[in-house]
Amino acid sequence: MKSFFQILLLFFCIHIYAQEHPNLILTKKGVENIRKELGNIPLFDETLQKTKKEVDAEIATGIHVPIPKDMAGGYTHDRHKKNWSILQKAGVLYQILRDDSYASYVHNVLKAYAKMYPTLPLHPQTRSYARGKLFWQCLNDANWLVYVSQAYDCIYEFLTQEERDYLEKNLFIPYANFLSVDTPQFFNRIHNHSTWGNVAVGMIGLVMDNDELIKRALYGLKSDNIDPHLKDNDGGFIKSEGQKAGFLANLDTPFSPDGYYTEGPYYQRYAMYPFMIFGEALQNAKPELKIFEYKNGVLIKAVYALLNLTDADGEFFPLNDGQKGMSYYSKELVSAVDIAYHFGGNDSSLLSIASKQNIVQLDDSGLAVAKGLQQNKATPFLKKSIEFRDGSNGTEGGVGVLRSINQHFDAVMKYTAQGLSHGHYDKLSLSYYNKGNEVLQDYGLARFVNIEQKNGGGYLEENTSWAKQSISHNTIIQDETSHFNGEFEKGSAHHSEKYLFDISNPKLQIISAKEENAYPNTKLHRTLVMLEDKEDFDTPILIDMMKFASDSTHQYDMPFYYFGQIINTNFKYSSPQQLKKLGTKNGYQHLWLEGKSIIRDKRTSQITWLSNKTFYTLSTLTNANDELLLTRIGASDPNFNLRRDPAFIIRKPKTKKDIFINIIEAHGSYNPITEIAHKAFSTIKDIKAVSLAKENYIGWKIITKKGNTHRFILCTSDSKKDTSHTITLNGKSVQWIGPYVYNKVK
Amino acid sequence: MKSFFQILLLFFCIHIYAQEHPNLILTKKGVENIRKELGNIPLFDETLQKTKKEVDAEIATGIHVPIPKDMAGGYTHDRHKKNWSILQKAGVLYQILRDDSYASYVHNVLKAYAKMYPTLPLHPQTRSYARGKLFWQCLNDANWLVYVSQAYDCIYEFLTQEERDYLEKNLFIPYANFLSVDTPQFFNRIHNHSTWGNVAVGMIGLVMDNDELIKRALYGLKSDNIDPHLKDNDGGFIKSEGQKAGFLANLDTPFSPDGYYTEGPYYQRYAMYPFMIFGEALQNAKPELKIFEYKNGVLIKAVYALLNLTDADGEFFPLNDGQKGMSYYSKELVSAVDIAYHFGGNDSSLLSIASKQNIVQLDDSGLAVAKGLQQNKATPFLKKSIEFRDGSNGTEGGVGVLRSINQHFDAVMKYTAQGLSHGHYDKLSLSYYNKGNEVLQDYGLARFVNIEQKNGGGYLEENTSWAKQSISHNTIIQDETSHFNGEFEKGSAHHSEKYLFDISNPKLQIISAKEENAYPNTKLHRTLVMLEDKEDFDTPILIDMMKFASDSTHQYDMPFYYFGQIINTNFKYSSPQQLKKLGTKNGYQHLWLEGKSIIRDKRTSQITWLSNKTFYTLSTLTNANDELLLTRIGASDPNFNLRRDPAFIIRKPKTKKDIFINIIEAHGSYNPITEIAHKAFSTIKDIKAVSLAKENYIGWKIITKKGNTHRFILCTSDSKKDTSHTITLNGKSVQWIGPYVYNKVK
Repeated sequence: MKSFFQILLLFFCIHIYAQEHPNLILTKKGVENIRKELGNIPLFDETLQKTKKEVDAEIATGIHVPIPKDMAGGYTHDRHKKNWSILQKAGVLYQILRDDSYASYVHNVLKAYAKMYPTLPLHPQTRSYARGKLFWQCLNDANWLVYVSQAYDCIYEFLTQEERDYLEKNLFIPYANFLSVDTPQFFNRIHNHSTWGNVAVGMIGLVMDNDELIKRALYGLKSDNIDPHLKDNDGGFIKSEGQKAGFLANLDTPFSPDGYYTEGPYYQRYAMYPFMIFGEALQNAKPELKIFEYKNGVLIKAVYALLNLTDADGEFFPLNDGQKGMSYYSKELVSAVDIAYHFGGNDSSLLSIASKQNIVQLDDSGLAVAKGLQQNKATPFLKKSIEFRDGSNGTEGGVGVLRSINQHFDAVMKYTAQGLSHGHYDKLSLSYYNKGNEVLQDYGLARFVNIEQKNGGGYLEENTSWAKQSISHNTIIQDETSHFNGEFEKGSAHHSEKYLFDISNPKLQIISAKEENAYPNTKLHRTLVMLEDKEDFDTPILIDMMKFASDSTHQYDMPFYYFGQIINTNFKYSSPQQLKKLGTKNGYQHLWLEGKSIIRDKRTSQITWLSNKTFYTLSTLTNANDELLLTRIGASDPNFNLRRDPAFIIRKPKTKKDIFINIIEAHGSYNPITEIAHKAFSTIKDIKAVSLAKENYIGWKIITKKGNTHRFILCTSDSKKDTSHTITLNGKSVQWIGPYVYNKVK
Repeated sequence: MKSFFQILLLFFCIHIYAQEHPNLILTKKGVENIRKELGNIPLFDETLQKTKKEVDAEIATGIHVPIPKDMAGGYTHDRHKKNWSILQKAGVLYQILRDDSYASYVHNVLKAYAKMYPTLPLHPQTRSYARGKLFWQCLNDANWLVYVSQAYDCIYEFLTQEERDYLEKNLFIPYANFLSVDTPQFFNRIHNHSTWGNVAVGMIGLVMDNDELIKRALYGLKSDNIDPHLKDNDGGFIKSEGQKAGFLANLDTPFSPDGYYTEGPYYQRYAMYPFMIFGEALQNAKPELKIFEYKNGVLIKAVYALLNLTDADGEFFPLNDGQKGMSYYSKELVSAVDIAYHFGGNDSSLLSIASKQNIVQLDDSGLAVAKGLQQNKATPFLKKSIEFRDGSNGTEGGVGVLRSINQHFDAVMKYTAQGLSHGHYDKLSLSYYNKGNEVLQDYGLARFVNIEQKNGGGYLEENTSWAKQSISHNTIIQDETSHFNGEFEKGSAHHSEKYLFDISNPKLQIISAKEENAYPNTKLHRTLVMLEDKEDFDTPILIDMMKFASDSTHQYDMPFYYFGQIINTNFKYSSPQQLKKLGTKNGYQHLWLEGKSIIRDKRTSQITWLSNKTFYTLSTLTNANDELLLTRIGASDPNFNLRRDPAFIIRKPKTKKDIFINIIEAHGSYNPITEIAHKAFSTIKDIKAVSLAKENYIGWKIITKKGNTHRFILCTSDSKKDTSHTITLNGKSVQWIGPYVYNKVK
C-alpha cells in the first residue's frame, strides 16, 4: 500500500523527461495497437463509427463558442457542454484515424476559446458558491477542462510550439489558475466538486508537463484561507480545519478502504469519471506513481463497490441524494469499467458488465475490453451479499447488502456516516428489491436533474423538507423529529456502528447495527435476517428487528414505503372523509393520512399488497395501543414535486423501550394474461417476541401456517464468534456459541 | 354470405353418416400429418414437449375429482379447472404420441366424473344467477365441457361401446341437458356466457353425433319461459323479447359486420375461444355448414378486430369492463390466431403475431402456423388507423382508432352502443397511447380477477360506483351526472352516431361522432384530429374538439386521466391544506381535489407532465370563469380498490353551449442515465377558436412558438365528401369541398 507521503516522496524524486504525446488516456504505443486492430474488434469498431458519425455531424454545423450567459439547461450552457464532449471525441478520432481535419477542428475551437477566455468576467449567474466563467458554477468549468485537456493532448504534436504557446498562455494556464488559486473554496476541499477541479488542473498539467499544476492537483493549494464556517449551496461545510486537499486527499478521505464513497453511489458515480480518467492518465504519464495501487488499490475497489451497489437492473441504490434510474450504463461507468479491466488485472467478470453497456472508451482500455469480449472471455458478474465500510479508515459504520442465493432479492441497510452535504438523516434505514423492482423504496432525491421548469434542474425545496428527513425513509423516527434533529453539524459528528454482518450461512444472513446518537439518550439497534427455507417460504423472507430504548417515553414511528395496491389487511381501520396532514414539520407535513387503526390487543398485524405482479405481505407484531397508519406522500407539495407514493407506518406511542418486529415476505404472483393468482396469501400465521430474563438478548419466533416455528435469538452485547451463551427460556436452558442462535421446530 | 336461415336449411338437409374420431379440433388425417412432421417443426415440437412435461407431472399426482364446494380461487374450483385443462391436453397427447397411458388417464378421470355427476345437487355456493354443479356458476361448468369434450373425442375410439355408453349416459348427456334445458337463463341468451354454454353442448353433441344437441347448440332452446325483466349478476338483461338464441344468434347479434363484439375487446377475447374452437370443430365435422363464411366471414374478421384493438404491446384497449394487461398473448388468442391462419387463408401477417406468442395449438391449425414460421413466411402485422362499427348490422356507432404513421401513437374513440351488462357510460370517450404506454388512460374495470381477497375475485362495488361512471373516462360530463343518468335501460336504448372517420390523409386523420341522448336536450359532438407536421411537431399532436349545446345552462367537465408527474403549469392554482372529495355521487365521490384554478381571462392554459421518460403537454382554450381542477382517484375507497391515478379536469360552469378545444402533445424525452432533458417545453404558443357567422361550422387555430398557424374548420351538419362549402371568415370568403378544410400558414 502506498501512502500519501510515499507518493509525495516518489513524486519529487522522479526525474522528468520531455514527454511525448498523446500521454493521457491515449499513448503513442496504444494508438499504434488500436490502429493495427481496426476492423477486427467489433465493439470497438462500432463505438468508433458511432463516435465518428456524431462528431462529423457536429463539425458540419460549424464552430460555436458563445459568450457565457445561461443557467443549466440554457443555450450557452448546453453549447459549451457539447463542445467539451465533441472536442474530446474529435481529438481521439484524429489520433485513431489520422485525419488532420479533426485536429484542425479541435485547434480552431480551442483558438476561439483562447481568444474569448481572457475577456471573460465571472459568469453572470450568481447562484453558485463558486461561480465559473464558461458556466454558472466552477464545477462545470472543471468538467470542461477534464475533457478538453484530452483533446489538447491528442493534437499536441499536430501544433507548432507557437500555436501551443498561444493556447496555453491565453487559455489553459489562466483556466487552471482560475479553477485553483482563484477559487480555493472550490478547489481545496474534500468533495466531488474539488475532485473535478483537481483532475482538471492535473490533466492539463500532465499535457503541458507543468510540474506546478500537477503538484497542485495531487496535493491541493498550500494555503487557501477558507473560513471553516463557510458552507456550499447544498449546506455542506467547505472545509474542516486541518483537512488536507488535492486529488490524493480526495482519495484518502471520502473513500473507505472498501472503495465506498461517503456521499453515496450516485455521487460516487459522478466523481468516478475524474478519479478513473486521471488514474489512467497518471498511470500512462507517471507510471512510477503506481496510482492504481494507492491506498491498497482503492480506485479499482471503488469500481467494484459501485457495481455491487446496484440492483438487478444495474441501477444504483439511491442512498442519500441519488437520482433513481442512474445505473452502470452511464458513461462514467463505461469509462470506469474499461479502466478497471485494463489496469486492474483483466477480471473477466467485468467484461459481462461491459457487454451489457455495449460501448467502450476509445483508448487502450476500451480496446482491451472489446478484445476480451470478442474472444468470449466474459464471465458473469455475480453480485453477492457484501458489506462496505464507510470512513477513510473504514471505522465509520457502513452499508450492508444481503442478497438471496438466487440473486433476486437485495436488502440494503445503511449505517454509514453522514455523507457530506448530500447525506440524508436515515440511520439504520432499509431498502428492499426483488429482481430490480423496488419492494421497499428509498425515496432518493427530490430533484429533476436538468429539467429547467423544476427550479432550473437544481435541488428542490422538498429535497430538504422531505427527501432528507428521516420519515421519508424506512427507519425509526422518535417524536416526529428527524435523526440529529436534521442538523448537518450534529449528523456529521457521528456515524452508526456495525454490530454484525454475517453471511457465512447463505440461508440465514444477518446485518445488525447500532445507532446511539441520532436521538438524545436513545439507543437504536436494528437487525435484519434474510431467511431462506424452501419448505416454508417460496422465496426468502426478511425479518427486521428494530430495538429502541430511551430514558423517557416517546412516540416511535416505523414507516415502510411499499409500491402497488393494497390487497388486504387483517386489521380494521378507519378511513377519513377528508385527508389531513400527518404532521406539521420534519417531513410529516408531506404525508396525507389515508387510514388509521388502533390495536386493541397484542397481535400479528398483516398487510398484503400487489406490486409488479408479485404479492407481498408485511407482518408486524403489534401491542395494544400501537397505531397502524396508511399514508401517502403529496401534502404541502403545491408544485407536485413529490411522487404520490404510499407508506405503511407502525406507530408505538408513549413507549420507553420496545422492539419493532416486522417480516417482509414476497409470495406468489399474479398474471393478468392467464388471470391466475398464485399463492396470494401470506404463509405466516404469527409472530412472537422471544421473552428473556436477560436484557441483552432479543429474539423472535415465527409460526407458519404449516405449523412450523422458526426461532432466532441474538445477543446484543457481544458479537464475538466464539462466546458461549446460556439463557433460560420458558424455564429451559438454551446454550449456544456465537452471537445468535436459530432453530426451526416442526 | 350465409344467413341464419340458409344455414338452418342446410343443416336439415345434410345426411349424417357415422362419423370417425377424432373429429373436433383434431382429425384422423390431421393427426397423420402431425405425426409425419414430428421433430421437424420447432415451434410445434416445443409446444408438444412443454405440454407433455406439464401433463406427465400432473398425471403423476394421481386423479383428483373432489366433491364441488368452493368459490373461485378455492381448492375444488381450481382443481376442476385444472382437470379440464389437463384432460384436453392428455387427449391430444394420446392422439399425437399414440401412447395409451394418456387415453387411460383420460378414461379414468372421466369415469370418476361419471360416477360423481349423477349424485351432484346444485353447487352449494349461491351467488350466481345460474348456479352450476361442478362450479359455482354454469359458465365454468360450460368451460369444463368445451375442453373435456375434446378429450373425449380424442379417446373415443380407444373406448368400447359399453364404456362410451356409460360415460354418455351418466355424464355427458345429463351434463349437456343441465347446461341447456335445465338452465335456460344461462343457455338461451345473447351473452358470452351463453356462447360458452352453446359451444359446450355443441362440442359434446358433435363428438356423440347427437343431432339434437347440435341443433340446440346452434339454434338455442325453442322455449325457455325466461322473464324479460330478469337480470344477471352484472345487471344485464337476460333476454329481450323475440331475441333469438344459440350459437348462430350469438354470432349474429353481438358481432358487428366488422367483427367488433359489443361487450368490448376484453370479453370478446374471452368469448373468442368457444367461438373459434367450435368454428374449427364445425368446419372439421360439418364442413358443409361453411361456418367460417357465416355472416361474411365474421369469425375470422373478429380475430382481426381483436388484434387491431391492441396497443403496441399487444394489450387490448380496456373499453368497458376490461382488465388491463390482457393481451394477444392469452391462450384464447393463440387458439384464435392459429385457427384464423389455417381456416382464413394463411395470412402471413398472422404468423408474426404467432411468432410473438411463441406457442401454438396442438392441432392442424397450430401445425400450419408452426410450419409457416419455420418456412420464414411471417410478415409484419401492421396496425393502421381503423374503424369498427358496432351493432349486428353495423349501424350502432363504433370504435375508431387513429394511429400515427410510425405506429407509435394510438388514439381510441368510443362511440358505440351500451355493450350489454359490461358497458360503461362513456360516450365519445378518448384514450391515448404512445408506444404501448398509456398517455390518457381508460380506467378499465374495478376488479382483481381471481384474487380471492378482493371480493372472491369478482366485480367490486367500485366497478359500479367508479369504473362505469362517465367521470372515470376522458369524456364530457354534464352537472356531475353520468351519461343516461347511469341507467342501463336508458343506455341500452341508444348509441352514438359516427359523423366522420377520414384517414385518407395520413398526416391529418379524423374521427368525429355525435351523441344526442346521453343528456336530455343536449347535443354532444366530439372531433379528434391527429396531425403530423414534422416542421412544427416532433411527433403527431392530437387536437380534440368537444362541442356541446343544451337548451339550458349546465356545468360541463372534461377530465383527462394522465400518468406521471406534473412538470409545470402556465396557470396559478390554489392547493388545499386538506383534501376534500370533488363531489358526492356518480363517481365524483371517488376524486380528491388537489388543486384548483379559476381562469380570469380567455387564454390558452397548459399543463406539462413527464411520464415514461416522455414530456407531454395538454393545452386547452379556457374562457373567463372556467375552472381547472387537479384531482386524484382514491376518495370513498376504504378498501383501496382503486388506483391513485391523477386527472386534470377542465370545468365550464353555467354554460349553455361551447366547445372544449384541447391539444395533447408528446414532446422530447428525459433520460435518467445521461440526465439529458430534450425538448422539455411545448411547441404550442396559443389556441384560438375559429369564430364563424354560421352555426354549423366549428374550428380551431393553433399558433406554434415558431410562429406558424394551423387552421381547421369542420362543417358539423354535412359530412359528405363532395359538398362544397363557402363561409365568411374575418370578412374573407373561404371555400372548400368536403366536410373540413385545413391550412397551415407560415
